Amino acid sequence: MIKYSSKYLEHAVAELAKLPGIGEKTALRLVLHLMKQDEQRANTLGESIIAVRKEIHFCKQCYNLSDEELCPICVDTQRNQEILCIVEDVQDIMAIESTHKYNGLYHVLTGVISPMEGIGPDNLTIEALLQRVKTQLPKEIIFAISPTLEGDTTSLYLYRLLQQYDVKFSIIARGVGFGDELEYTDNITLGKSIENRVSFESQTVE
Amino acid sequence: MIKYSSKYLEHAVAELAKLPGIGEKTALRLVLHLMKQDEQRANTLGESIIAVRKEIHFCKQCYNLSDEELCPICVDTQRNQEILCIVEDVQDIMAIESTHKYNGLYHVLTGVISPMEGIGPDNLTIEALLQRVKTQLPKEIIFAISPTLEGDTTSLYLYRLLQQYDVKFSIIARGVGFGDELEYTDNITLGKSIENRVSFESQTVE
Repeated sequence: MIKYSSKYLEHAVAELAKLPGIGEKTALRLVLHLMKQDEQRANTLGESIIAVRKEIHFCKQCYNLSDEELCPICVDTQRNQEILCIVEDVQDIMAIESTHKYNGLYHVLTGVISPMEGIGPDNLTIEALLQRVKTQLPKEIIFAISPTLEGDTTSLYLYRLLQQYDVKFSIIARGVGFGDELEYTDNITLGKSIENRVSFESQTVE
Repeated sequence: MIKYSSKYLEHAVAELAKLPGIGEKTALRLVLHLMKQDEQRANTLGESIIAVRKEIHFCKQCYNLSDEELCPICVDTQRNQEILCIVEDVQDIMAIESTHKYNGLYHVLTGVISPMEGIGPDNLTIEALLQRVKTQLPKEIIFAISPTLEGDTTSLYLYRLLQQYDVKFSIIARGVGFGDELEYTDNITLGKSIENRVSFESQTVE
């Protein structure tokens, strides 16, 4: 018995089902949805997917996604060129940008050091970061890496590599998130939030 | 502030987010996943999506999905040409085929009559069904339409159109609960419901 009555249907379902979080049922539903749309819709979607790997590059300087050699953030002369924020991946840049609280540059590591997953320093953009710090000598480097075991290990590893330079190092504050219940906050986070307490006025008077 | 650092990224995210059940966050995650794959992966996926509307057609006889004029089920001479199973859409054919309990032909209505959604008989493949019954004169017609309000209305509507022909009419057994979707019914229930189909009149004349 054949499961699919069309090999193109079967192929499209198989390809879509390779995407993370998309199973065969969902993939089939997506293809049947496309069958009900104009042919142009499927063409536009297909071409936009082909363009992803063909047209989008990693910024030569910071490894953000970009259509040009340098990304819009790196070429923006309005931004503070003397602060460098180190993040794990591109989504973190988007998350930080959407806060409107940061106006410096970024460096995307493209991951964190994780021996369990076989990711060592050589798999990340650490060599490029070292060269960049050496030549551009920023005034401040912010570690904005997720406070997980791997993230903290990575921040510490980078700090040791970079501490030879005359730079101010900082790390994003740990504390209780907006809307979190103290009662359910883990000990480490709660302890940090007490240790690193800041003046009341600085938080409430904007 | 620009949200995406690449217009191709923005475009691919926007196109993917038009798909049902895929929001912008999921779309972004899918694109970033593709960025980590070989270029060939994105090409294959994109081309398979373009091929959906370009290469897949509706079977000229039964409106199943097919790469040829007639679908594999319609051209299969091993199947019983004298039984016709009327279903709502293509997924229902797949669901029934996977029960291995049916060996006749199908007719896909491409929907059910739904005044609420503005779908009348003219939006479905009913005219083609009438022509088909008239010329092929099957011995039995099975209504295998989801037992919802719209589905039942559609079955009854078709029965009234077709009862002039000397055909045995049957309807899948109510193992399927009222309001359930055929597509998500388990194989055993669905298989039983085909095996135990009963005369149409006994179900609708109370």
